[in-house]
Amino acid sequence: MTRQPTDPAALTADLIRCPSVTPEEGGALALLEARLGAAGFTCARADRNGVANLFARWGEKGAEKSFGFNGHTDVVPVGDEAAWTVPPFGAEEKDGFLWGRGATDMKSGVAAFAAAAIDYVTETPPEGAVILAITGDEEGDAVDGTAALLDWMDKEGERMDVCLVGEPTCPDRMGEMIKIGRRGSLSAWFTITGVQGHSAYPHRAKNPLPAMARLMDRLASETLDEGTEHFDPSTLAVVTIDTGNPATNVIPAQCRATVNIRFNDAHESQSLIDWMQYEMDKVASEFGVTGEMVVKVSGESFITPPGPLSELVAKAVEAETGVAPVLSTTGGTSDARFVKEHCPVVEFGLVGRTMHQVDERVEVEQIHQLKAVYARILKDYFG
Amino acid sequence: MTRQPTDPAALTADLIRCPSVTPEEGGALALLEARLGAAGFTCARADRNGVANLFARWGEKGAEKSFGFNGHTDVVPVGDEAAWTVPPFGAEEKDGFLWGRGATDMKSGVAAFAAAAIDYVTETPPEGAVILAITGDEEGDAVDGTAALLDWMDKEGERMDVCLVGEPTCPDRMGEMIKIGRRGSLSAWFTITGVQGHSAYPHRAKNPLPAMARLMDRLASETLDEGTEHFDPSTLAVVTIDTGNPATNVIPAQCRATVNIRFNDAHESQSLIDWMQYEMDKVASEFGVTGEMVVKVSGESFITPPGPLSELVAKAVEAETGVAPVLSTTGGTSDARFVKEHCPVVEFGLVGRTMHQVDERVEVEQIHQLKAVYARILKDYFG
Repeated sequence: MTRQPTDPAALTADLIRCPSVTPEEGGALALLEARLGAAGFTCARADRNGVANLFARWGEKGAEKSFGFNGHTDVVPVGDEAAWTVPPFGAEEKDGFLWGRGATDMKSGVAAFAAAAIDYVTETPPEGAVILAITGDEEGDAVDGTAALLDWMDKEGERMDVCLVGEPTCPDRMGEMIKIGRRGSLSAWFTITGVQGHSAYPHRAKNPLPAMARLMDRLASETLDEGTEHFDPSTLAVVTIDTGNPATNVIPAQCRATVNIRFNDAHESQSLIDWMQYEMDKVASEFGVTGEMVVKVSGESFITPPGPLSELVAKAVEAETGVAPVLSTTGGTSDARFVKEHCPVVEFGLVGRTMHQVDERVEVEQIHQLKAVYARILKDYFG
Repeated sequence: MTRQPTDPAALTADLIRCPSVTPEEGGALALLEARLGAAGFTCARADRNGVANLFARWGEKGAEKSFGFNGHTDVVPVGDEAAWTVPPFGAEEKDGFLWGRGATDMKSGVAAFAAAAIDYVTETPPEGAVILAITGDEEGDAVDGTAALLDWMDKEGERMDVCLVGEPTCPDRMGEMIKIGRRGSLSAWFTITGVQGHSAYPHRAKNPLPAMARLMDRLASETLDEGTEHFDPSTLAVVTIDTGNPATNVIPAQCRATVNIRFNDAHESQSLIDWMQYEMDKVASEFGVTGEMVVKVSGESFITPPGPLSELVAKAVEAETGVAPVLSTTGGTSDARFVKEHCPVVEFGLVGRTMHQVDERVEVEQIHQLKAVYARILKDYFG
């Protein structure tokens, strides 16, 4: 009797039917645990603070060679359910697409690497270990998600030599982009406080607005860098300046502004924070006002420089899709920011155009292609 | 039988009892018309568009020498009536003060010059004319108030050689300040429009905020002038900058800001408007955004340079109050901005501390002092 290969589209559909809106597990990780367990994977839950996380390993703990996949089964809310043309957790297939929340981000990615791993270890058991680290919280705060999984692995002595994150990475066409790093991101909230007064007597007031204008002009005018070997130039965007004073005869006491910085590996968040603090203090002293800055760092920049891992993935992508992928560091943030502390990491997945949208959907053919790419990566890695 | 002098405090009280909240006449001008008519003044109403205005002349039309007084009987609303410790139109006298809406701004001023004029022309009929031009709309739009009175006078061939506006002019102490001019005032509303986008990809957007920051910095940094002979330096106050974008990952499409300029006789509003337009267009072109500016001019600057009129008034003030007044051009705007098109004009009145406030009140003694000052001015002018 010939074994049937695991159908990644069917598995995606099964996962879509699990309503795993962050932080709900929704049955998704339990489903994967059952399938992987049946295929001989050692499974363990690495839950933390109510967030469900699944660790699965085929092969020996401490194997000489190990390949890891990382992904998430949680999804963003459906939004306006009435605006969907299909039930968002129905996993309907029509017009060559599989429809539903999480179809691209990223139940298809998880299903593709799980199916590839199950078939690979079953058909050609490798010398080494295949690890799947799947979290139930990537779309939320993510503090108890992949970070918790990696903490758990460290504690348990579990490790991956390299890791591939299965997030959608292709802007338009399947196969066109591998991500080898990401810029860092931080936001800073500024408050400049002066002394309220009458517009006719500005010398009796301390207007915070010219100070804020000067500060925002200086920050926005700075060339942070010219780009680095693998990164575009860092950017700073002033996203809002607000006062809320309707009276033309009143100088207001306070003004607020927010900037967002996307930064490459020429910077660490702290050096940017120090720079903003310096500029703010300088302006505050020029104008005799006081400045306050609150910063939130979403993530530092990181990079896995082009090398064996990205070559391995690129070769498999080109072989299966006919497209030579570019190695990119564009885009927002992902759980790769946690994984990079553990081992070299790259990201490759399908086209993410409808992610987070109403009527999220994935081309069924792409799920099969993605499984084939992942399967070839495993074969080449252990081959 | 000895004639009793006209009591300006009693006349003020009678006027306070007329509820003449702009644009209501409230009986105030009718009362004055009756008193002035009885004293031999030729009275006429110069109403326009529902606003009541009273013109009164003692002496011949076209007299060789004429002195005018200008003032208003309308008052601002009482605000929170429950917060008053007295009925706002009750004109109660207690603790040496006369209480009520309009007590300082400026029924006392009108009563003082009306009483001074009545007694003066009755007791020592001068060679010339005494004109009273009293409006019922100074606190509102003022387009059909003193401006209408002056239009009417032009049409009727009525004229004043000089004019004194009886508005409160003293900041703290009776007699300390005469106003010989006022700065102009204008406000400009700026809108900078770019193209919305994602903070991570600022090159695909056109952020209006750095452009607005640059523009506000440039406008606020400009030294408009160093002051002129009779004026403090012109000032520009940025009063608000607003965007209303709560999302750190979004570059907004639009930003608004407002500036208010108080300008002296080194400028006309149009030259300032041209300058702002030039700076806005320059910044818009530097940043590839579009700018829009809407301007409202509240009034041009004006001055009656120190000379016979201000000397006449200053001498009378010092003689009656013992205080040598300064000649000032500070403060907001007044109907003197209309009168200055007609003849030399200065402003002198009492301490205005409680004007527009709850529990507006005037020291009774100050009303008598003010009448004495106005009486001396008439005597010296015609003497």
